[in-house]
Amino acid sequence: MTVTVSVVGASGYTGGEMLRLLCNHPGVAIGQTMSRTYAGQPIRRVHPHLRGSDLPAFVEPEALTNADLLVLAQPHGVAQREIERYAQLAPRIIDLSADFRLRSPEDYERWYGEAHAAPDWLPRFVYGLPETQRAAIRETGHVSGVGCNATATILALLPLMQHDLLVPERPIVAEIKTGSSEGGAKANAGSHHPARSGAVRSYAPVGHRHTAEVQQALGIADVHLSLTAIEMVRGALATAHAFARPGTTEKDLWQAYRASYKEEPFVRIVRTKRGNYRRPEPKILAGSNFADVSFDLDAESGRVVAVCAIDNLMKGAAGSAVQCLNLMCGFKETTALEFGGLHPI
Amino acid sequence: MTVTVSVVGASGYTGGEMLRLLCNHPGVAIGQTMSRTYAGQPIRRVHPHLRGSDLPAFVEPEALTNADLLVLAQPHGVAQREIERYAQLAPRIIDLSADFRLRSPEDYERWYGEAHAAPDWLPRFVYGLPETQRAAIRETGHVSGVGCNATATILALLPLMQHDLLVPERPIVAEIKTGSSEGGAKANAGSHHPARSGAVRSYAPVGHRHTAEVQQALGIADVHLSLTAIEMVRGALATAHAFARPGTTEKDLWQAYRASYKEEPFVRIVRTKRGNYRRPEPKILAGSNFADVSFDLDAESGRVVAVCAIDNLMKGAAGSAVQCLNLMCGFKETTALEFGGLHPI
Amino acid sequence: MTVTVSVVGASGYTGGEMLRLLCNHPGVAIGQTMSRTYAGQPIRRVHPHLRGSDLPAFVEPEALTNADLLVLAQPHGVAQREIERYAQLAPRIIDLSADFRLRSPEDYERWYGEAHAAPDWLPRFVYGLPETQRAAIRETGHVSGVGCNATATILALLPLMQHDLLVPERPIVAEIKTGSSEGGAKANAGSHHPARSGAVRSYAPVGHRHTAEVQQALGIADVHLSLTAIEMVRGALATAHAFARPGTTEKDLWQAYRASYKEEPFVRIVRTKRGNYRRPEPKILAGSNFADVSFDLDAESGRVVAVCAIDNLMKGAAGSAVQCLNLMCGFKETTALEFGGLHPI
Amino acid sequence: MTVTVSVVGASGYTGGEMLRLLCNHPGVAIGQTMSRTYAGQPIRRVHPHLRGSDLPAFVEPEALTNADLLVLAQPHGVAQREIERYAQLAPRIIDLSADFRLRSPEDYERWYGEAHAAPDWLPRFVYGLPETQRAAIRETGHVSGVGCNATATILALLPLMQHDLLVPERPIVAEIKTGSSEGGAKANAGSHHPARSGAVRSYAPVGHRHTAEVQQALGIADVHLSLTAIEMVRGALATAHAFARPGTTEKDLWQAYRASYKEEPFVRIVRTKRGNYRRPEPKILAGSNFADVSFDLDAESGRVVAVCAIDNLMKGAAGSAVQCLNLMCGFKETTALEFGGLHPI
Repeated sequence: MTVTVSVVGASGYTGGEMLRLLCNHPGVAIGQTMSRTYAGQPIRRVHPHLRGSDLPAFVEPEALTNADLLVLAQPHGVAQREIERYAQLAPRIIDLSADFRLRSPEDYERWYGEAHAAPDWLPRFVYGLPETQRAAIRETGHVSGVGCNATATILALLPLMQHDLLVPERPIVAEIKTGSSEGGAKANAGSHHPARSGAVRSYAPVGHRHTAEVQQALGIADVHLSLTAIEMVRGALATAHAFARPGTTEKDLWQAYRASYKEEPFVRIVRTKRGNYRRPEPKILAGSNFADVSFDLDAESGRVVAVCAIDNLMKGAAGSAVQCLNLMCGFKETTALEFGGLHPI
Repeated sequence: MTVTVSVVGASGYTGGEMLRLLCNHPGVAIGQTMSRTYAGQPIRRVHPHLRGSDLPAFVEPEALTNADLLVLAQPHGVAQREIERYAQLAPRIIDLSADFRLRSPEDYERWYGEAHAAPDWLPRFVYGLPETQRAAIRETGHVSGVGCNATATILALLPLMQHDLLVPERPIVAEIKTGSSEGGAKANAGSHHPARSGAVRSYAPVGHRHTAEVQQALGIADVHLSLTAIEMVRGALATAHAFARPGTTEKDLWQAYRASYKEEPFVRIVRTKRGNYRRPEPKILAGSNFADVSFDLDAESGRVVAVCAIDNLMKGAAGSAVQCLNLMCGFKETTALEFGGLHPI
Repeated sequence: MTVTVSVVGASGYTGGEMLRLLCNHPGVAIGQTMSRTYAGQPIRRVHPHLRGSDLPAFVEPEALTNADLLVLAQPHGVAQREIERYAQLAPRIIDLSADFRLRSPEDYERWYGEAHAAPDWLPRFVYGLPETQRAAIRETGHVSGVGCNATATILALLPLMQHDLLVPERPIVAEIKTGSSEGGAKANAGSHHPARSGAVRSYAPVGHRHTAEVQQALGIADVHLSLTAIEMVRGALATAHAFARPGTTEKDLWQAYRASYKEEPFVRIVRTKRGNYRRPEPKILAGSNFADVSFDLDAESGRVVAVCAIDNLMKGAAGSAVQCLNLMCGFKETTALEFGGLHPI
Repeated sequence: MTVTVSVVGASGYTGGEMLRLLCNHPGVAIGQTMSRTYAGQPIRRVHPHLRGSDLPAFVEPEALTNADLLVLAQPHGVAQREIERYAQLAPRIIDLSADFRLRSPEDYERWYGEAHAAPDWLPRFVYGLPETQRAAIRETGHVSGVGCNATATILALLPLMQHDLLVPERPIVAEIKTGSSEGGAKANAGSHHPARSGAVRSYAPVGHRHTAEVQQALGIADVHLSLTAIEMVRGALATAHAFARPGTTEKDLWQAYRASYKEEPFVRIVRTKRGNYRRPEPKILAGSNFADVSFDLDAESGRVVAVCAIDNLMKGAAGSAVQCLNLMCGFKETTALEFGGLHPI
C-alpha cells in the first residue's frame, strides 16, 4: 500500500523536514509540494539537504489536487481559513500549524487574540501527540501538530501528573531553552546573525501560546512557561519545576517515569551517573524523533526538576507528525523515524 | 595614594580579570602575582589579553610578601586553610572563593559537605555585593567574593523582596543559564569542546551551592535554583519566577525596581518595547561590570519573571571585587570599571 | 550473506561513527567492540547517540577473536605494531589510522618522524579513497583510512589534475578549515571550551602530515596545506588555490568536474547562483557521506579556487571506510550511507 | 583643545564603534549623530552598548551642521556623491566607506563596476592605514577608511615586501576568515541565524574588492584574496601564503617583522611555543585595536604562511579611523584605543 502525501507550505523548515522524512518512507509517495513563494522552483532551491532527491518542483496553491493525505505546514492562521477546501482534497489531514491544537474556541481566542475562523473543526481534530492521544490518532482523519515547547514540557511532566505525585497548591514553572529554527525560515531583524548569535534572550517570559497546549494536555491551570532563546539552531530543552508530595522518593519518580514511558518508542529516560551526557541534551537529538526525559529531586523541599530534550523540528513538529501519519495509516509507528542522532556534533 | 595589591591564584580566569582591571586602576600598583602552577613564568603565558603589560612574573606561594591588599582567587577550600597567614601579610583581603561567603558555619557545612576550617573568620568577612552590603564593605578589611549565579539571582529579585511584593507561600524558582568560563581555566572531560559546544546541560538541577548565598542575602528559604550550561563562554542570565501579591501592577514593579536601583552605578533596568535587546542579555556585557535587570508580569496569575544578566567573571566575580576594593580603599566606586561592553559581539 | 565486523578502538569518535553506520547495515553483524579504556562498560557510556542499540559491551584488546573484517580505529602508531596479530584474526582489515596510508616507507618516515614498524605491509594496503582507488579496493583485503583534510583537498583538486588544466610551474595552496572533533575524543588544554570556542587557530600553517597523502594521490609535489581550526565540531572545508592554463574557461572547469564525478555516488558539484548554499558547506553534511565540491575562476589571473566540504568523521573517516567495506564485500556501494544531512542545523 | 566630531551614518556597526571610542576620547566632543533611518530616536535604540551615555539623538542628514571633523560611516557610494557638501561642513573628513580608498579612478571603476562620482577627490584622500601612511595622514585633512580584509592581509605581508624577501614569480594567496558583522547591521536572507550559524561559506572565492587595496598598498599585482565566512561575529584572520627567496631562514623573518613593527603601537608579533594562543587569534582582540601578526616557514619549499588577526570593526574600521583622527589632530596616537581585549571570551 502506498499513501500519496502532498505537503502544503513545503518551503519552510517543518515542510523541509516532512519532505526529508517522507522521501525515505517506504509506504509514502510524495504527491505535490506547494509553496506560493517558490512555485515553479526546484526543491533544492530552499532545501539544500534534499539535493539529489527526485522531488517535484513547488506548485502554486491553486494547483493542489487530490491526495490521500495532506500535510499542512503553513503559517498560523492559514489552515483554519482554508480547511474546507483542504478537506475536499484529502480524507486525511495533518496540520502542523497552531490552528487546530486547542479544543475550545474560547481558549483559542484567549491565547491567539482573535476568534477562530472554523470553530466547528476544532473538535474534529485530535492533538497530535501520540504519547497522550495514540488511540484517538489511530481513529481519526484529522490531526493537529504540536507546539515544540509544549511537547517538551508535557513529556517532562506527564509521569508526575499521571501518577499524581505533585502537591496541587504549588505552581509548576517551565523554562524552555529554544533555538533559532523555531522562528522559521524567514529572516527578520531579530534573526540577524550578529544580533542572534550568542543571545540568551528572554523573548517570552510570560504569555507564550504553547502554555495553552500544556494546560490542556495536563489538565491543570497552575503551570507557567517562559521561553529563552539561546545559541542553538535546532533543539529545545524544557526544564520544569514542580513540587512533589511529602515523602516522595527518587524511587517513586523512577517508577512513575518508567511506567509512563516503558512502551513509548520515542521517549527515553536519560539519567546516568557518569559521562558528559548524564541528563537529556538536545544537540545529540538533531534529526531524531526521540524525546529524552529525566528528573531530579530535592528531597528537602520536594522540588522535582523534570527535563525533556527534543529536536524542535522533529519530535516538536515533523517527527511527531510522521508518527501520527504512521498511526493514522496503519504503518509501524517508527517507520521513517529510525535516525538516532549524531555524536559528537 | 597608591594601594599595593597582590593577586594570589593569579593564573585562573578570575585572577586574570583582576589583573586586567587593576592594571588600569590609577590608584593601584600590582605587587605580586602568585601561581603555584606557573611560578616563574610570565603572565602572558596564560593570559593572552595581558600581552604587552609590564606585570611581574608569577611567584611561588612561599614568596608572597606584604601588601596593602590581597586578592585571593584560589580554588575553594584553600583560603580558609591559609587565612591566618594571609591576614599577616595584608590588612585587607578580598577572597573570591566560596570560603567566606556564608555567615554560618552550619550553612557552610550543609552546602559544602564538610566543616569549615576557620569558622571564627566567617563573621569577620562581609559578603562582597555592594548592592546589599555597601556600608559594611566600606568599614571592613575582609570581603568575600560573590557567586556569579547568586549575584544574578539576588539582583533580579532584590526589589521584589525589598518592597514586599511577593506572596510568601509560593516558591521562587530561578533558572540560571551559564557559560563555560564558570568552570574555570582547567580542562576536563566535560569541557572538551566537542562535548561542551552547543550543550544545553542541566548540570545542577537541584542542590547548587549558590542557593545558600541567595537564601542568606534575601532572607528567605523557599527559593530554588537550577543551573543549565549553554553555548556561551562568558555570561550568566538568571530567570527568576516569583508570584506577586494580588493586585500588583506593572507600575508597582517599575517603582520597586527604580527605587532599589536608582542610585546603583552598575545596575540598569533594561526593558524596552523595540529593538533586539528589549530585555537584559549577557553577551553585550562581556567585560563590563553592569548587571542588567528586568521583569515581566503575568497579570492573571501574578507570576513575575525577573531576569538579570551579568558577565560572570565581572559583576559575578572580579568586577564586584574591584567595586568592593574601591569602597574599602576610598576610591570612587566605578574606578577601573568604566568599560561598557561591546556590540555587536 | 552477513559479514561479521569487529571494531578495534571503538570508543573514539571514528569508532563511534563506524558503530552507528554498521548498526544499520543490513549485511553486517557487529562482532566485538574493543576499547582498552572502557573495557567492560556499555557502549552508551561514551556514545550517547547509540543509546538503545543492542551492541555488546567493550572488550579488552586481548579478548579479540576472529571476525570476517576488522575495523581498526586506534591512535596512530598502534596498528603498525599489531598488524600481524590482526591479520591472523581477520582476512579483511580497514585501518582508519594514518599507519598505512602512504606507500613509501621513506615518505612515512619523513612526515611521521620515525621509521615505520611494518614497512612490508605498506604496499599491501590500498589507500581507502574510492574516488581514486575503487578498482583496487574491490580486489584487496587491506584498506587504509583517509586523512580528512587530505580527502577534502584531493576531491577539490582531482578534476583539475585528471584533465591537465593547471599550469605546472605555479604552486597549489590549500587552506583547510577544521572542526574540533578532528582532535579526537580526549580532552586537552587546547580543547577546553573557553579556549577552543570561537577560535580561528592557525594550528598547522605548514608541515601538516596530510600533505603527504595529497601529494601521493595527485602525483605532484608543489601542493601546500595549511590548517585552521574554527568554531565547528564536525566538518571540514578545503579551499584550494591553483592556476589554470591560459585560456581555460569556466565551461572547461564544468566539463572537468562533471567528467570526473558524474559516476561518483558521493561527490556532488554544488554551484548555484541563488540561495544561501551556493557553494559547498560542511554543516549541512553532518552525518552524511557526501563530498560537495565546487570551483571559481578568476579569468584574468587564471586562479581557480576549488572547494570541497565534507563531514570529517564521515567522508573523511568512517563513511569512506564503510564505502570501502561495501566495495570489498560486494555490497552496493551506498549501503548504510543513505543519510543525506540536515537543514537547518 | 577639544575637537568636535560628528558621525554621519551613526546607526551602523562601524558608526556604533566610532561612538563608543569617541565617547571616551578626552579630546573629542561628539557633535551630531546622523542616521536617516533612525532620525529622532535615541542612540540606545540601536546601540545597546551605549545605554547610559549622554549622546544626542540621531538627526536627519539635512540637519547636519559644521564640525571640526566629520566621520562618514555610510554605505559605499554615498560619500562620493556628497563629498562637496561634507567638505563645506568640516575641514577634516574621515570616510570609512570604500569610496576614497583607491588612488586611481580606473582601479575604482574596475573593482566597483562603475565610474567614480568624484574622481578629483581621489588624490586628495590618504589611505587610512597608519602603518603605511602615517606621515601623510598627519599632514592631510582627508583620510579614507580601510577594508578590514585588506588591513589584515597588508599587515601580514608588509614586512615580507619591505624587506624584499619574496620570490617575485610566485603568487601570493590570502585566505581571510570573516565574521558576520562584516556584512553590516541590516538583516538579509544570508544573515538569518539558522542559515549563517556554523557556516563555512566561500562567499568571495575570487574577485573581492579589497584585493585592489592590497595591490595598491603592497605595490604588486600577483596577490589573490579569498574570503570565507565562518562562525564568528567580530574578527578576521588573514592567512597569507607567499614564497620566500631560497635560503631565507626563520631568523630572517623574525628580523623583518621586528624591523617593520617595532615602533608600531598596535601591531604585535605573536609567536610562542606554548599555550593555547601561539599564533594570532581574532577572538581575544574583540574591542581592541591590535593587529596580531605571525609567520611560519616551510624551509623546504620556502612557503611562508603569514597570518594577521584583527577585530574587523576596530583595526579594520573604527579603530584605525580613531588612530588616524589622533594623528590628524595631534593627539597621542593611542588615545581612546587602550582597551586590550578580553580573555576568556
